[in-house]
Amino acid sequence: MSERDQVGSSRRVSRRGLLAVAGGLGIGGASLAACGGTRPGLAADANAGSEDAITFWGSHQAGIASPAQSRLHFAAFDVVTTDRAELMALLQEWTAAAARMTKGQTAAPLSGNLLAPPEDTGEALDLGPANLTVTFGFGPGLFSKDGDDRFGLGPRRPPALVDLPAFAGDQLDPNRSGGDLAVQACADDPQVAFHCVRDLARKGLGVVAMRWSQLGFDRTSVTTQAQSTPRNLMGFKDGTDNIRAEDTAAMSRFVWVGSEGPSWMRGGSYLVTRRIRMTIELWDRTPLGDQEQTIGRHKRSGAPLGSNAENDPVDLKALHDGQPVIPANSHIRLASPDSNGGQRIMRRGYSFTDGMDSYGELDTGLFFICYQRDPRRQFIPIYTRLAATDALNEYVVHTGSAVFACPRGTTRGRWVGQGLFA
Amino acid sequence: MSERDQVGSSRRVSRRGLLAVAGGLGIGGASLAACGGTRPGLAADANAGSEDAITFWGSHQAGIASPAQSRLHFAAFDVVTTDRAELMALLQEWTAAAARMTKGQTAAPLSGNLLAPPEDTGEALDLGPANLTVTFGFGPGLFSKDGDDRFGLGPRRPPALVDLPAFAGDQLDPNRSGGDLAVQACADDPQVAFHCVRDLARKGLGVVAMRWSQLGFDRTSVTTQAQSTPRNLMGFKDGTDNIRAEDTAAMSRFVWVGSEGPSWMRGGSYLVTRRIRMTIELWDRTPLGDQEQTIGRHKRSGAPLGSNAENDPVDLKALHDGQPVIPANSHIRLASPDSNGGQRIMRRGYSFTDGMDSYGELDTGLFFICYQRDPRRQFIPIYTRLAATDALNEYVVHTGSAVFACPRGTTRGRWVGQGLFA
Repeated sequence: MSERDQVGSSRRVSRRGLLAVAGGLGIGGASLAACGGTRPGLAADANAGSEDAITFWGSHQAGIASPAQSRLHFAAFDVVTTDRAELMALLQEWTAAAARMTKGQTAAPLSGNLLAPPEDTGEALDLGPANLTVTFGFGPGLFSKDGDDRFGLGPRRPPALVDLPAFAGDQLDPNRSGGDLAVQACADDPQVAFHCVRDLARKGLGVVAMRWSQLGFDRTSVTTQAQSTPRNLMGFKDGTDNIRAEDTAAMSRFVWVGSEGPSWMRGGSYLVTRRIRMTIELWDRTPLGDQEQTIGRHKRSGAPLGSNAENDPVDLKALHDGQPVIPANSHIRLASPDSNGGQRIMRRGYSFTDGMDSYGELDTGLFFICYQRDPRRQFIPIYTRLAATDALNEYVVHTGSAVFACPRGTTRGRWVGQGLFA
Repeated sequence: MSERDQVGSSRRVSRRGLLAVAGGLGIGGASLAACGGTRPGLAADANAGSEDAITFWGSHQAGIASPAQSRLHFAAFDVVTTDRAELMALLQEWTAAAARMTKGQTAAPLSGNLLAPPEDTGEALDLGPANLTVTFGFGPGLFSKDGDDRFGLGPRRPPALVDLPAFAGDQLDPNRSGGDLAVQACADDPQVAFHCVRDLARKGLGVVAMRWSQLGFDRTSVTTQAQSTPRNLMGFKDGTDNIRAEDTAAMSRFVWVGSEGPSWMRGGSYLVTRRIRMTIELWDRTPLGDQEQTIGRHKRSGAPLGSNAENDPVDLKALHDGQPVIPANSHIRLASPDSNGGQRIMRRGYSFTDGMDSYGELDTGLFFICYQRDPRRQFIPIYTRLAATDALNEYVVHTGSAVFACPRGTTRGRWVGQGLFA
């Protein structure tokens, strides 16, 4: 039994199902294989990889509630055309390419024509779907940029898609922030995630230009230890109290846009990214006790301070010698729903390491991703409080920031964000 | 049967063997577990991850002939002390820490002392060994730097450890080149590789300073497709004609230093790294036929031009209409042993992506690693020829370069490079 068999069956698409889909697009499985348009494992041979597929289609975009894969390649683009039709055509092309790649296929069928550039860059041939999800988002600049409503979308900007305010302590690099379009590619193989972003960028030539991109990683074994919480680069478990996708009530309440949103956003979600650099040299010289007081949890077990097990309830009222056991400025107290009027966000962070800075310190940390129903009630007030008093601020600095409206999922025959342009 | 079981048994260390080793170091398995010094899977529970261990000890350093893991974290350090004893003490500490981490243990036993910084940064707790290998190398600067023989090692510099010459087309960034010490950490989990480099760097505080570091990736599925050749980011199979570790005659002839070297280098190897940036935007606009003529192979199959299968022999004499089928300036012709007096090198490259450059293009390519018995007869003449006329030069630029002498393997009770200091 391969480790892939341990993944929940809801994540799987059978090979037969895949071929049916290919047929439904009017492309026969046989001809695909003949022209190299499909990866071998998919077309013919039994290959564990071919079962690691998450469907692109549905009422929600994949990559939000999907179990977090172990690799991220995130890219933000500026739209450089002012032609609405070009933008719409690109979104249609991106939809088709994303749907293909999530099945382990090339971004477009390969013709084998020696006189033209290959239709796909090729580095993901033979690798299978690797649970690739592609999640698209629309930034504020799509609706209005420097006061210019380039695409006639200004009046359709959802009120919840606000520009983020300046937060205390922000040290944002504009070259790592913002963007008119977002592509979040998550996969269990970095080469598959990279290939996805690269081939989408290539299709966008002349219509969009990449503004920034970010690689992220989690432990490889994430799929085999579905019940254990990953650790961030501070060495602490991160995500213990996250919203679980199975908790549909919480998903509806906190993640998916409901009837308050425009129809193209119902079932969608708002995405906030923050590139959080950790000053790990300082952190690594901090005593264990201080680290635990900063986070509010025990390092080894992940249990809240004063408790024994990771999933023990966080008792913010507990006192010891008249002092709160979980300190007043600890991260988990300030981030907890009880400190935030019951509000929660769905986190999907990845660790990053981008070499060294000019001081010879590792440029490393957490690429924080969160999804929510309305950032005005969720990320913004929560992080405003954290930015002001979180003890963790001594060890982190936010160097990138962006916000996007991720439209509802796409059903077969339609394209991502189509309702916005209707 | 887990996919890990498909890995050759030579790579495995049994759990019983691991505990015996721990015992041999004078640390009981039980006390280790009690103080959190070992990851849980290792000490008690059956855990597939605990079998993914490659022993640190042996006559050769691991990470040279070991099957390539899917992730790389490479770091080069400058030695900042001038105290020989401090340098020796660090190498001893690094040896002990590396041996522990390759078993899936923390870099040092955890005391749980709340008043001191934790002995290990913690992000790899629970992750298992993930086939971690740690390979150490000594750069020219260890023997003499700016004319200063800081450690009295100058007379012991092996003649084969030459400074690399300037090659045609080099655009080397000094901040991505050179270094007095090298640490190559390879693992099947990026968080394990990162943790290893981070904790070694931390132990080196005040003795060494990180000069540069490089993350690299290969497809995740590398261990499940041991017989298939990975593709680089040009989309071509890369490594078809590489030296195979099982070919002990070729390893002895081309990789391991023999009696010509000083005793501390016998069984060691010389490491050359080159950070090769690919101008993928240009490559992606190049017709398929031109790409294949540049490389000398068919893209889809990996077969040499004019052949059908990847492993068909490369026939450099074949003609078509009086012209060579494999072009005169194609990469595989110029790199082939037949064009280089029979010389070969052992390659161990990883793809990299380091975000974008100031022109908005992806800074991406191949972090080329090669091992050899003598760079004066191998990498230097081979690459001199390639740098002059390889058709591939139109699409790549070398932005980093380094050379290191990787000493023979370390046997238990000794430390890496001990013979150099004897």
